[in-house]
This record gives sequence, structure tokens and C-alpha cells, in this order.
Amino acid sequence: MRIESEITECVAVLSMNEKTGWQKELNYVSWGGDPPKLDIRDWAPDHEKAGRGARLTKAEAKRLREALEEMDLED
Amino acid sequence: MRIESEITECVAVLSMNEKTGWQKELNYVSWGGDPPKLDIRDWAPDHEKAGRGARLTKAEAKRLREALEEMDLED
Repeated sequence: MRIESEITECVAVLSMNEKTGWQKELNYVSWGGDPPKLDIRDWAPDHEKAGRGARLTKAEAKRLREALEEMDLED
Repeated sequence: MRIESEITECVAVLSMNEKTGWQKELNYVSWGGDPPKLDIRDWAPDHEKAGRGARLTKAEAKRLREALEEMDLED
């Protein structure tokens, strides 16, 4: 089953796969005409295809930010 | 196709669905015996079932944190 998606705002590219050109992105995405939600997902270079991902409400994104800020993410 | 998953560390609960008890969580998860990666996903109360989600490397999580810090997530 294919659901129409529209990226209403590109927020950030989290990584890029040099071989395939696919990117993991943070965007605002509207799915099936619903109001846009924050969305973390892999996208094909032309954005015609997308992988699985996670959708976040503002409250969830805020909680995620707090959690990430408490983490040591240095290499 | 069912892939074995193991939550190796619970980092944060991002939200809880009062009706179903499902939670959106940030965890370190090992999939199919691979080294654990950061993982944002919905989980059933008993963690026996999971929804779709996003897996993040440390570098991606760091980039995500930076992007979220630039955003106004207040209501």
C-alpha cells in the first residue's frame, strides 16, 4: 500500500550514503494529506522512495532532544 | 520475516499511549545479533511487538541533537 507523502520542510541531513546517494533526513512530512509531523527517515536521492522511519510530535521531539542532550555522543 | 531484537539499554520514553499502553522509546537495540544502535520506535507494553522506527549511528544522533537544538519546540 503506497501512502502519498509531502516533505513540507527539510530540517537537516543526518547522514549520506556515498555509494547509493540515499540520505537519512530530519524533515517535516505530511503523510496522506495529514498535518506535517517531524520525521526521521532514509530517502532516495530524488525523494521518490523512502525507507522506514519514525514520526514525532513536537512533545516527543522535545523529550528526544532532552534525552540526547544527556548522552555522550562523542567518538 | 521476523528479526530478533534485544533492547540493550533503555534511554528514554518519548511518549505513552494511554489507551493501548504502547510507548515511543529511545533505546539502544541490537537487531539480529548486530552491535546495538540507537533506535527510536514504538513498543508494545511487554516489548514483544514493535512498530516501524529509525536506527541511528552515534554521528547521526549527534547531528540530530544539533538540529533539534536549533528548533523551537515550545507549544
